[in-house]
Formats: sequence, structure tokens, C-alpha cells
Amino acid sequence: MSASFSHELFETDGAIYMGSQRDPAGCRVGLFGVPYDGTTSFRPGTRFGPAAIREVSSGLESYCPQLDLDLEDLAFADLGALDIPFGAPEPVVMAVQRATEAVLALGLKPLMLGGEHSISSGAVAAVAAQHPDLVLVQLDAHADLRHEWLGAKHSHACAMRRCLEVLPSQQLLQIAIRSGTREEFSELRATGRLVAIEQLVQTLQPLRGKPIYLTVDLDWFDPAVLPGTGTPEPGGFMWNHFAELITELSQHNLVAADVVELAPMLDPSGVSSVLAAKVVRSLLLSLGNY
Amino acid sequence: MSASFSHELFETDGAIYMGSQRDPAGCRVGLFGVPYDGTTSFRPGTRFGPAAIREVSSGLESYCPQLDLDLEDLAFADLGALDIPFGAPEPVVMAVQRATEAVLALGLKPLMLGGEHSISSGAVAAVAAQHPDLVLVQLDAHADLRHEWLGAKHSHACAMRRCLEVLPSQQLLQIAIRSGTREEFSELRATGRLVAIEQLVQTLQPLRGKPIYLTVDLDWFDPAVLPGTGTPEPGGFMWNHFAELITELSQHNLVAADVVELAPMLDPSGVSSVLAAKVVRSLLLSLGNY
Amino acid sequence: MSASFSHELFETDGAIYMGSQRDPAGCRVGLFGVPYDGTTSFRPGTRFGPAAIREVSSGLESYCPQLDLDLEDLAFADLGALDIPFGAPEPVVMAVQRATEAVLALGLKPLMLGGEHSISSGAVAAVAAQHPDLVLVQLDAHADLRHEWLGAKHSHACAMRRCLEVLPSQQLLQIAIRSGTREEFSELRATGRLVAIEQLVQTLQPLRGKPIYLTVDLDWFDPAVLPGTGTPEPGGFMWNHFAELITELSQHNLVAADVVELAPMLDPSGVSSVLAAKVVRSLLLSLGNY
Amino acid sequence: MSASFSHELFETDGAIYMGSQRDPAGCRVGLFGVPYDGTTSFRPGTRFGPAAIREVSSGLESYCPQLDLDLEDLAFADLGALDIPFGAPEPVVMAVQRATEAVLALGLKPLMLGGEHSISSGAVAAVAAQHPDLVLVQLDAHADLRHEWLGAKHSHACAMRRCLEVLPSQQLLQIAIRSGTREEFSELRATGRLVAIEQLVQTLQPLRGKPIYLTVDLDWFDPAVLPGTGTPEPGGFMWNHFAELITELSQHNLVAADVVELAPMLDPSGVSSVLAAKVVRSLLLSLGNY
Amino acid sequence: MSASFSHELFETDGAIYMGSQRDPAGCRVGLFGVPYDGTTSFRPGTRFGPAAIREVSSGLESYCPQLDLDLEDLAFADLGALDIPFGAPEPVVMAVQRATEAVLALGLKPLMLGGEHSISSGAVAAVAAQHPDLVLVQLDAHADLRHEWLGAKHSHACAMRRCLEVLPSQQLLQIAIRSGTREEFSELRATGRLVAIEQLVQTLQPLRGKPIYLTVDLDWFDPAVLPGTGTPEPGGFMWNHFAELITELSQHNLVAADVVELAPMLDPSGVSSVLAAKVVRSLLLSLGNY
Amino acid sequence: MSASFSHELFETDGAIYMGSQRDPAGCRVGLFGVPYDGTTSFRPGTRFGPAAIREVSSGLESYCPQLDLDLEDLAFADLGALDIPFGAPEPVVMAVQRATEAVLALGLKPLMLGGEHSISSGAVAAVAAQHPDLVLVQLDAHADLRHEWLGAKHSHACAMRRCLEVLPSQQLLQIAIRSGTREEFSELRATGRLVAIEQLVQTLQPLRGKPIYLTVDLDWFDPAVLPGTGTPEPGGFMWNHFAELITELSQHNLVAADVVELAPMLDPSGVSSVLAAKVVRSLLLSLGNY
Repeated sequence: MSASFSHELFETDGAIYMGSQRDPAGCRVGLFGVPYDGTTSFRPGTRFGPAAIREVSSGLESYCPQLDLDLEDLAFADLGALDIPFGAPEPVVMAVQRATEAVLALGLKPLMLGGEHSISSGAVAAVAAQHPDLVLVQLDAHADLRHEWLGAKHSHACAMRRCLEVLPSQQLLQIAIRSGTREEFSELRATGRLVAIEQLVQTLQPLRGKPIYLTVDLDWFDPAVLPGTGTPEPGGFMWNHFAELITELSQHNLVAADVVELAPMLDPSGVSSVLAAKVVRSLLLSLGNY
Repeated sequence: MSASFSHELFETDGAIYMGSQRDPAGCRVGLFGVPYDGTTSFRPGTRFGPAAIREVSSGLESYCPQLDLDLEDLAFADLGALDIPFGAPEPVVMAVQRATEAVLALGLKPLMLGGEHSISSGAVAAVAAQHPDLVLVQLDAHADLRHEWLGAKHSHACAMRRCLEVLPSQQLLQIAIRSGTREEFSELRATGRLVAIEQLVQTLQPLRGKPIYLTVDLDWFDPAVLPGTGTPEPGGFMWNHFAELITELSQHNLVAADVVELAPMLDPSGVSSVLAAKVVRSLLLSLGNY
Repeated sequence: MSASFSHELFETDGAIYMGSQRDPAGCRVGLFGVPYDGTTSFRPGTRFGPAAIREVSSGLESYCPQLDLDLEDLAFADLGALDIPFGAPEPVVMAVQRATEAVLALGLKPLMLGGEHSISSGAVAAVAAQHPDLVLVQLDAHADLRHEWLGAKHSHACAMRRCLEVLPSQQLLQIAIRSGTREEFSELRATGRLVAIEQLVQTLQPLRGKPIYLTVDLDWFDPAVLPGTGTPEPGGFMWNHFAELITELSQHNLVAADVVELAPMLDPSGVSSVLAAKVVRSLLLSLGNY
Repeated sequence: MSASFSHELFETDGAIYMGSQRDPAGCRVGLFGVPYDGTTSFRPGTRFGPAAIREVSSGLESYCPQLDLDLEDLAFADLGALDIPFGAPEPVVMAVQRATEAVLALGLKPLMLGGEHSISSGAVAAVAAQHPDLVLVQLDAHADLRHEWLGAKHSHACAMRRCLEVLPSQQLLQIAIRSGTREEFSELRATGRLVAIEQLVQTLQPLRGKPIYLTVDLDWFDPAVLPGTGTPEPGGFMWNHFAELITELSQHNLVAADVVELAPMLDPSGVSSVLAAKVVRSLLLSLGNY
Repeated sequence: MSASFSHELFETDGAIYMGSQRDPAGCRVGLFGVPYDGTTSFRPGTRFGPAAIREVSSGLESYCPQLDLDLEDLAFADLGALDIPFGAPEPVVMAVQRATEAVLALGLKPLMLGGEHSISSGAVAAVAAQHPDLVLVQLDAHADLRHEWLGAKHSHACAMRRCLEVLPSQQLLQIAIRSGTREEFSELRATGRLVAIEQLVQTLQPLRGKPIYLTVDLDWFDPAVLPGTGTPEPGGFMWNHFAELITELSQHNLVAADVVELAPMLDPSGVSSVLAAKVVRSLLLSLGNY
Repeated sequence: MSASFSHELFETDGAIYMGSQRDPAGCRVGLFGVPYDGTTSFRPGTRFGPAAIREVSSGLESYCPQLDLDLEDLAFADLGALDIPFGAPEPVVMAVQRATEAVLALGLKPLMLGGEHSISSGAVAAVAAQHPDLVLVQLDAHADLRHEWLGAKHSHACAMRRCLEVLPSQQLLQIAIRSGTREEFSELRATGRLVAIEQLVQTLQPLRGKPIYLTVDLDWFDPAVLPGTGTPEPGGFMWNHFAELITELSQHNLVAADVVELAPMLDPSGVSSVLAAKVVRSLLLSLGNY
């Protein structure tokens, strides 16, 4: 990483993810954090997500028995925290887009840690510019298809609506969404974008080889395993559901990913952060495997 | 609601449940709280349950994709908190009975938020007086069949024993109870009142049309999804078990319900309160659907 | 309060402060909350401040032995929560200004509960328009004199800078500020606006009769007595320091006040909220006493 | 202690206070817990106070440098937890009175750990029967002089009113009370029972030799040093104020004492329990010193 | 229990498990705690495990409906806390071995509560000396097969490696391990010691009659049901998995057991301790049943 | 810093203190953390102290109005976390000594963040070797003069006893110690090493020019302002007491310092970490000022 790259976009005074390096030279994946939660309407705190994930990562093994892959065999960089303004989301989304472009320009696959879900549209825009046939796979409790929310177009409740401005509807898969308005569910059902959990793997298999962006809103998991998120929704998924997905995805052309909506202050036990860090390990190994 | 009704029985200085109104005029369901935990023997705090449910309810959508029903289509009242004395349970149970009678007199289906389980017998008595063929369905980790507990007849450990004083044994269904004394389990098995989780729906289906009172002791759920309760019991149930039940019950003549034993202070993550609020949303929609 | 007033500006589905009424008719003071923390740079959560203050207020007595005044002798309204957008602060500050004007138009003295400190400039602007000789007294750990912060002019780190756009420098008193940049302290010392704690009462006494706006950033208190705030600063003040101030202020023409920066989630013991609720009781009694 | 004594009144399956013994034979002081909080109107949990005090006591030294006394030189018994019913307070207060009589009959000075303040009247009644000239010294934030509260005569808000039924008014000293109704403060001032903190030692000195019962409602301390109590009241006292008192009291004929209203769940840092345990150490040394 | 036995090895100033007695005379099982966490590399606090298990045990029923057994029918002793030095693990493991030998010499089946997993090798050594054909069954998230960790041979990351020094490889069954290094998993697979969860019961059934030591590292459970442990690992097991195991084991010659790695401070809800206490109840009943 | 220096002794994957740099070139002060709590007898967790101090440091201003000094004018390095084994303290103390020697060899004044107090003797030994006339000033609640504790010579209860093996008694000043055994207090009083808080500044003033090592055991502060420590002791000191000390010390030849015994997990409000970070800022400015 040239010194100018680092200093202009990212702050590097925080901790790094277990096994990573600051310097992107020779790396295949570039991790970065976006500590933003300015539009969060219910319980804030996702700004602390990236730091919490890094902090607990040292408690994990580098080896994943399920994928039989080891982080020790992967060179990847932790680029630090994107330098962002507080307040309105528009400049944040723009900064995310520019940062993602810079990561791609370095030849790295981007892995972004939120922060709230509104940041994803910036990264998706940058990746879709490089991969016009990009398939966006969304793990989420909520449809995030509102046109605006509490007066804001870039609210985290509108995250997928914003992505649909750069991707056609059929390139978005929304996995086992369980909360939304009547209008959002009408659209989900009408468009065929809603994928039931039982059909997840068989829906993905035909897409092998296609560029995939996986956006993981951690509230897709059940609050039992991930209580530390702003809008927990009962009736979610356990680790094993994710394990099945990632086993499939590790055979895919995963080109980018993000993990958002961890609010570590809401879970004093810290297990939410540990689960998020294990999701990140899975994604690093999958991004590096193709 | 006439002003005198409100001021005599309920305190109205607290928050209201998302989408409700104070005035019962034109409503089908009447929600009220009973912040009582005077006989709790282990860990107190259920007195804060009703306020916590209301507080987090604004984080939920009004639409339920599973039932395909929306709270926006239902007129319901949040009548406030029953004004109760602290200390012995007898006057509290009497106050609950009178309040439930008042709610019924207004033409509303009662939905009571506890508070500890000992309050249910007051509400059941009032509803059973109107519906002699009432079927009481109990979700609970504990049998609650003690004759007395620590010297008190109206302890929460005796909740169902007290209900059996106004209802015959065969009008009580105890769903998947997993904790109790040897004597309680002998009675559960001998009477046939114990319904295994696998038989839940098939047991209920023949009762369509009959008046049903559902009492939800939240410790029926597994502590994984609801840690915020006074006597958590490992080995309980997940949201999907409740979802299956409520899908069935939304086709029934549900005439009243209560949701008890949420102790929000015990769960700093707040997900217990969110689950309880979603249970309440399900019950409101089911009560309003028949 | 006319129904239209309430419904246009305030949400009234939350709890009310102990002893208050919703209807402003006949009242002398109008309390309202502004649950905004969009520019908070360190630890968020002041959006929950107003609700927490109301919730714990019922644990206080209505009588204050120090002032020998009782809330039972004061008619005051709790108007609810200002309806605000999330994200950028400018529209929030504008909404605060309009709400304060509306409260003043009803003949009420405004008492605003934050939320973060950036909201104060809106209320100060409205009150200063009515009282051009207004003296603004600031209790705060921080100078809040930055011209902008992390790219935002209306950050809570700029709260007093924004107030100085509607008030001349000599009408601002900054009480025992203990944190700031070198530049801020240069200005504090050069302008004579910095009042040492020992000179507080003697500085105020000559101002009796003048219209006073008191803005209480709760981080003025020592973190020992108020840990629940976003940017705690060791070396602050105890309750008795505030008691001395309020005894003096109860003899003044206090025309408006605000209490900001309570972040209740950061203090699981709840004593921060109790202290804030007692500050509010003191302010209500003082506002009503002149 | 005869085995029958122990088994009839006390449960002995809990921990013991650092340095104590179960067997009262040869002891001068008898410690016991009363885990009751049935009338607590605001935030419950004082039932866990005695266990918390014992648990953290092992973190203290046995030596007190201020009194220059060491628990190692004192034989004292920890008799366990009084076996009490939950619910109404009357039978609890009666059980406390009988237990205190039993402790006195063993030749021990009683030191009772609450639980809520309503239990004190039972112990005071037993001690006053033995010492008709008993002086009751109350450390408390609240006057506790209500005639009844929320319908209960034995509420903790009525603790001193109940003691005044067995002691004449001039035998009660209420130390630096800072919260109450207007009526309570009228009585406090009219009777001369309210002792300012500055007059504490000079008020006590003439009483040397007289039998004294010290009741310590821990909310007398400032919430800064003791956040773990149900009704925290800002403006209280620091450890050094108590140290001054106990230095004086160690020269007095202290015949009994209690320490009440610790609610350890409300203070996750545990420092409230540590302070309470240090208060207990001071009282043990003072009770043993005369 | 002879007084000398108790005083030399165990501290008896703590609470006891529900339904136990201090005196081992006439008992079949001997419970004791080892509050040691000196080698814990990530998040400490298992030293508080034994006390937490005892504290919450009183909230459980003595009857287990699944096994149809009642603790009231079993005489068992709670011998207290092993007196151990802090710092290096070697003397702790030696003390555990001597204590286990003493318990066995009293004719009791040992049930040890940790503390961290490194203590198990001491107890296993003592039991294996008496039962050379002992089968060690390990429930654990982690393989614990490191040869050393952070410079320590007796780290909790090496617990099973140390046990393999006294037991041959084929006498160890490692149940559904889900975390480890690549080397550990190679060994697990090569030796056939790794038992999949689906094969658990059928693997155990042929061993009926053989002496079994069950070591329960509580992090085997999913963090959803047991967040209170130092190195939580997503993807674990629910209560029902354990229930199936214990139903089988209650028909076996279970000669000893331990329950380790509960860190109660990490779970403010307390449900981790409740689950651990229920595991202990199951083990007590199974140990007593053969 | 040469790469070999960094990689051999310190881990650099964590965050850095606000305003510091990794590279020691050109710096005057070298900060490093020692995350060790292996001998902690009561409540562990000081291993997380260094990370917590760094994490919250970004919430502080770089300017100190009291000293009128700004961190922006000081070049200082944050060298990372000393790589240490878990378990016994002896190798840890040796590693601390070697690391301190390495920091001194780079021409930096060492500022060590604990971890528990037992580490100080290693750093004191290294500094005293360079400054034989070193004066060690101890802020602490506890005397730390035990010869051994729970079988360990290098326990944190023996920290000063170990320092007295490299420094003569008259070169140690123990400031306002308030807890210890009778023997420790006899020694404190007999040697004249105990300095009352009122005599602190006048005791230090004659030492201007002499090399001083300040060891700050944070439990010297009152638990009100610093609840997050393992053995909190009521009756301690407020920030202003420390401010007076540091104003004096900033005129002294402060050659090294440490800040130990922060246990951030024990204080969910985080204010303990903020106070510790402000202590560190004061020490950095004082170390750099001479």
C-alpha cells in the first residue's frame, strides 16, 4: 500500500483482524471498516462493530474445519477504518464507493465491515461498475426496500432499494427475509427475489462462476445467537444455516462482501461479536479460495 | 373510554403499544399491564415487563408476513397500567379480575401484560364467567400446579392450581411443560392435560370455534431466545414453535390472552422484550382476526 | 393544547414526566423531548435520554426540601417527543426552533430534554427572539466552541459556537468548563466568559431579573455521579454544586432551560437517569417560581 | 448454636461473611440475613443483598486501619438467612422480631442484613424490649415516615413510622435525611429529630454509654459510591462521612445494627456490595469493641 | 466427613448446591469446586463458576422429568472449594489430583466444578488410577490437543493432551469437536476419536458397564444457550442434545465427571449458570443412579 | 524502531493511544502494555486494561488546560503489547524488566500500562539500574507489602515488597494507603513511608530534580470514579487529588511511570477507562515536559 493511499482514506490507529497485515502488497483480500450509524432509527451503536470484530478475532483459530482452509495460507490486508463525517448518509455512501474503488484498483477483493446497512449501496455500486453481471445476495431479517424512511433516502431501511438503482431486479437475491411492510412483501413475492431458506443452496448452485457480492446484515441470524444488533427480529437463523451457505459459496466467484449491523454494546456477553468475527473468517477464506 | 373508567382503575402516564390508542371507543381489543411481582421467589423484575414491551414495540413492523395481517387494520386500545398495591397477591388478583370485567364490559377482548403469572387466575375467572366452556391453553416451562409455595396460595408457582378452581380440569391444556415436582408430573400425566409439542396443532384443531384463553408464560421459550425471565429453564422452544401455534390460533375464537413473566432487567441486550413484543403483536392480530 | 398542535409537531405515545399533564391548558411550563444523537462522535445513545428521565421520575418525591417547593403546586405539561428526521442535524435544529416558538406561543416556558447538545441552538434562537437581552448560562464539561467538527457545523462539539451566532459574546456565561482545545481555552480566557465554580453565585446575583436560559450538558457533572453520557470527563461536579446554583436561580427570571447529553444505556445502574430527573425537577420548580 | 435453633429459623446453605463461624458458641455478635423485598415500589432486588455482601467480603482485609481493630480478634457468628414467606410484609416483620429475640437470647448482639427497610421495625421492637432507653440512629436518604404507602402499613417507605410505635419520638435520630414529602419534612423539623451532617458527632457524643441501634439504609450514601439501591437519591454522602460516624460509634454502647436496601443486581461493577461489606466490617468491629 | 479432611483441602465458607450436605457421611457423590482460571488466554472469570452454579441451583426443581429421578432420593455432599494457589497451573493440577483421591477414598464418586479445563487432567489421573479401563468422554467445542500453549504445558488449550499422558488414545472419545488447528483435526480424524453428534448414542451404547468419566467443557453448547464462557464458538449444541446423551449415560457406570469453563461474569442474564446447574443436576442423578 | 526490536518483544496488532506513533524514532516517551493478570486473587480482567485505555483515548482532547500542555507538541511512541506467557508471574516480571531496558536503550522514558501491579517490580528494577537514586512514588489503596500471598512471591499483593528488593526503604513513598494488614500498617507507620494526602505536595517539592518513578495503582481512586478495578476499596480519592499531584510532578524529573489494575469489564459504563486514559495523558505530558 502506498503511504498516500492509506493516509488519505483510512485511519490506521486501530487494531487489525487476526492474521492480517496493514500493507496490501501481495494480498488478495482487503478488509476495511466503516464505523457509521447515523440513520439508525431504533438502537444505535453499529459504529463500534468493526473494532469489536477485530478485538475478538484473536480468540478464534485460523483454521476452519468445515471448509478445511486456513487463514495462515491467505495473504490479506486490514486497511483500517474509513474516515467519514458524522450526520447525513449521502457523503458516507460516496466515501464508501470511492474507498471500494481504491481497494479494487489495488487488485484486492473488498470485504467491508459496518456500520449500518446503508453503506452497502456504495460498495455495490463500485463492484457492479467492474462486474455488470454481478449477483447481489442479501442475508437480512428485513427487506430494506423502503423508498425512504424518516425523511432519508439513504436510511438503512432503504439499503436494497438504493442497490436496485445500480443493479437490475433479477440480479438481487433476498434470502429468507422475515420482516417488512405489506408493500415490501408484495414486491418480494411478485419479483421472485425472495428465496426460502430451504431453496438457498439449489438457487445458488446454477450461479457458480458468476460474480457474487454477499451482503450479510447480521440480524438475519436469530437474536439467540446474535443479540447485539439494533433491530433484532425473532425467528432467524442459526450458525448451521450460514455454514451450509458458505460451504456452497466457497465454490463460487465471490468478488466482494460486507458484514453489517453488529452493535456490540447491546450484547455484554460478546458472543455477537464472536459470531460476526467467525462470519468474517468464513468470508475471507471463501474470497481467497476462488 | 369514559374518563371515569380510566382514572379509577388504570394509570395512564406510561407509554402505549405501537399503533394503539388510549380511548377504547371503537376498539376490538383492550391491552393493559399489571406490573406486579410480589411473590416471585427467585429473581424479581417482571413489574417492568409491560413498560419494556411497549418501549420496544416501535422497533417492530405493524405487518406480520406469516399471518398476512397488519395492525394498521385493527383498532385496539392500550388502557395503561392497572393500579395495584404492593405486597400480598390476593388484592392484586382481585383487582385483575375487576379490571378484566371492566374491559369485557366495554366490549373489548382483554390482552393482559404481566407481571408474574399469579395474576392470570384473576383474568381467567372474569373471562370464564362470561364463557363457561372456556378452554385455557398454557404455554409455560413450569406446571404451576403447587397448592401453595413459600406459604402463599397465590404465588406464581400456583398459577394453574388457582385457575383450576374456576375451570374444570379437562378445560386446561398444558403445552410441553418441562419442569415441576414429581407430584406435578404425576398429575400432568394422569389427567392428560400435558400436550407434547408435536401434538400441539392437532390437539387444538378440533377446538375451532370454542372460546380460548391463551396464557403465555414467556419462560416456555428457550432461555436462548428469552433470557429475561425470573426462572429460566433450559430445553425450551424457539420462535418457530410459537409461530406454528399462532398460525393455528388465528383461526380460533381467541377471546382473551395474557403474556407474563418478562423480567427485562435480566436481559441487557433487550431481545427478550423484543420477542415478547412480537408475541403481543401476534396475539393482537389473532384476537382481532376472528 | 389544541389537538392539531400536538399531532403536528410531537409524538405522544411515550410516558410523561411525574406529575405532568398532556394538555398545556393552564400550564406555566412546557416540557418536550428531542431524541436526537446524529452527530455524536464518540458513544451514541442520547436519543434515549428523554424517555429514561420520564421513566425514573416516578421514583422521586414531588417535594424539594432544599427549595421548599412542590411540583404538586405547579401546573406543567409534558408535550411529548419532537418528531424529527434522523441523519443530518440542520433540519433537526430547525424543527427545535419551530417547536420552541410554538411552546412560547402557548404562553409556556420551554424545558427541553435532549438528545445531544447540538439541539440547544435552535431553542436558544427561538427564546432570544423573544428576549433580546437573554443571558445564556452553560453548564458543561466541554467548551463546545469548535467552528465545525468532523465536517459538520451543527455537531454537538459546536453547540455554543452556533448559539454565539444569535447572542453576543457577553451574554454567554460558560461555567467551569474543563475540556477543550488550546484555541477554545484561549477564547474562553480572553473573553471572560469562563466562570470558575467558586464565582458562580456571585456572578449570577447581579443578573436577577434578567431573562436567563440555562443549558445543562449533564457531562458537567463528575462521571462518578453521572457515568451515563457520551463523552465523560473526569474532574467534574457533584450534586451539591448544582444545588447551590439552583437555589440562586430559583430567585431569577429563568425563562427557558434544557437538559442534554444523557445516554442512559451507558449506565446500567440507572443513577444517571435519576440525577437527570432530579435536575429536571429542580428546573421545573425554578421555572415555575418566578 | 443448638442444631434445632439453626434449623427452625435460618437457612444455612449460603456463604458466610469473611472470618465468621456458623456456630454461635463463644461469639459476641450474631449476623443474619433477611432476603425480603416484597414492598419495594420502584426497583426490586434487595433480596440478594445479604448474599452479595458475604460474597465480596473475602476481598476485604480483616484489619481496619482507621479503628485499629481486626476481625481476627473478634468471635462472631453468621447464622444464615432468615426463612421467610414472600408476599405481604407483616409475617416477615414478625419473623424478624422472633429471630432477633432468639439472637439476643443467645447472648449475641444482632447485626441484620437486608433486604428492604421495612424489616427494621421487627428487630428494633425486639431490641427495645430489652433496652427501653434504646436510641435509634437512622442513616437514610428518605424520612420513611409515611403512615402507609400504596396501601401497605409495613412498606419500606413507612419504616421509621413503624419504629415510632415502639420507641418515643425523642429516642430517634434521623441523620441528614434529604428526601421526603412536605409533611414528612414538617415533622422532621418540628420534632428536632433531623440531625445535620455537621452536627452528627456532637449530637452523638453526649449519648456515650446509652444503648444504640444503628439502622443503615445504604441509600444514605451518594449514588456515586453506592449506585446499587432501589431508590437512589443524588446529593448523598461519601465513605469519609461514615468513617467519622463509626469512629465515634466505636466508643458507644452499640447494641444492635442493620444494613439494608442493597440491591446488587443494579450495580454490575459490584462496588456497592463492597462498600456495604465494609460498612458491615465497621459495624462488627464497633459492636465487638464495647 | 472428618474435620481434618475438610479443613486441610477445602474451604467451606461458600454456599452449597441445592439439596446437598456438607458432611460426606452416607453420601454417594462428592461435589467440589476448583475456582482456577490462571491459564485462560482470552476472557477470564471461570474462577467464579462453582459459586455461580451453587447460587442459582435453588431456582431449579429437585426432580428431573426426563430421567424421572429426584435429587431428594440421593444423598450427596458439597465439599466446598479446593484451596489452591494462584499463578502457575502445575501445583493446581497436583492439588486437584490429591483432592480427587481423597474424595474417592471416602467412597464418593467425584463431581468437580471448574474453573478452567486444565484442571481435568488431575482428576482424570486420580480416577484412572482406580479404573485402568476408564473411558474419558469429552464434550467440548475445542480439541484441547495442543502440546503447549503460550508457553504453558498445563494450559486449558492442552487439557486433553495432558489426559492422554495417563490414558491410551482409544479410551478417549471427543464428541463433535468444532474448533482446533489443522494439526489437531488431522489427529482427531486419524485416531477415530472424533465422534459426530449423530453417532453419539450408538457409540456409547456398547460401553455400558465400563467405567466412564464425563468431562463437560460447557463451550460445547452453542453460545446462544451458554454465552457465559471464555472462548465461545458458534455452531454448538442445544440442551436437547445433552438431554439425549444424559438419558443414555444414566444407564452407564458413570464413575466421575466434571463441568468446566463457566465464566458467569460474561453473561449478565445468568442463564449460562442456570444451564450449568441443570447439567450438574443431571450428572448428580446419573452418578447416583448406577 | 528497528523491525527486530518490535517483533521480538511486542505485539503490534492492537490499537494505539491517541496521537502516538508506532515508530520510536524521534520520540521522548515509549508507551507499552502488559496484559497480565495471572495472580489476581479476587476479580480478574486487568489484562484488558491497556486495550481499553487506547480505545477510549480518542474521546479525549489532546490539550490539558490544567498543565497548559498539548500532546500535539510531544512525539511519543505506542510500542504495543508485551508478548507474555500466561500462568506464573516470574517469567512475566522478567519479560517486563527486559522490555523496560529495551525502551530505555532507545532513549525513551517508559510508560507501562497494566495489567496487575505485580509487573511494576520488573520495570522499577530496570529503571533503578539506570537511576540508583530513583524515588518510587506509589499511588495505591493497598500497601502491597505482603511477603507472599496465596503461595506466590510475585502476587500483586506483594508488589512493593518486591520493589524494596531493589530500592532502599527511604526511596519509596506510599501515598495515602488505606488498606492492609495490621503488620503492613505497623511497617508503614514505623518507616515513615506513609504520606498523608494533605502532605503530598510538600513532601514532593524538596525532591525536584531527583529521578522519580510514579506507579499508579488505579484503585487509589475512589470506587465512585473508578469502579473498574479488581479490589475496589471505599474511601479513596477524586480526580482533583490526582490533578494536584500531577501539577507538582510536571515540574519534576519524572523518568518513568506505570498505570495498573484497570479491569474494564467490571465497569460497563466505561468511565473507569476514560479516567485511566486521562491519567495516561497527564503522565505523557509530564514525562515529556522535563
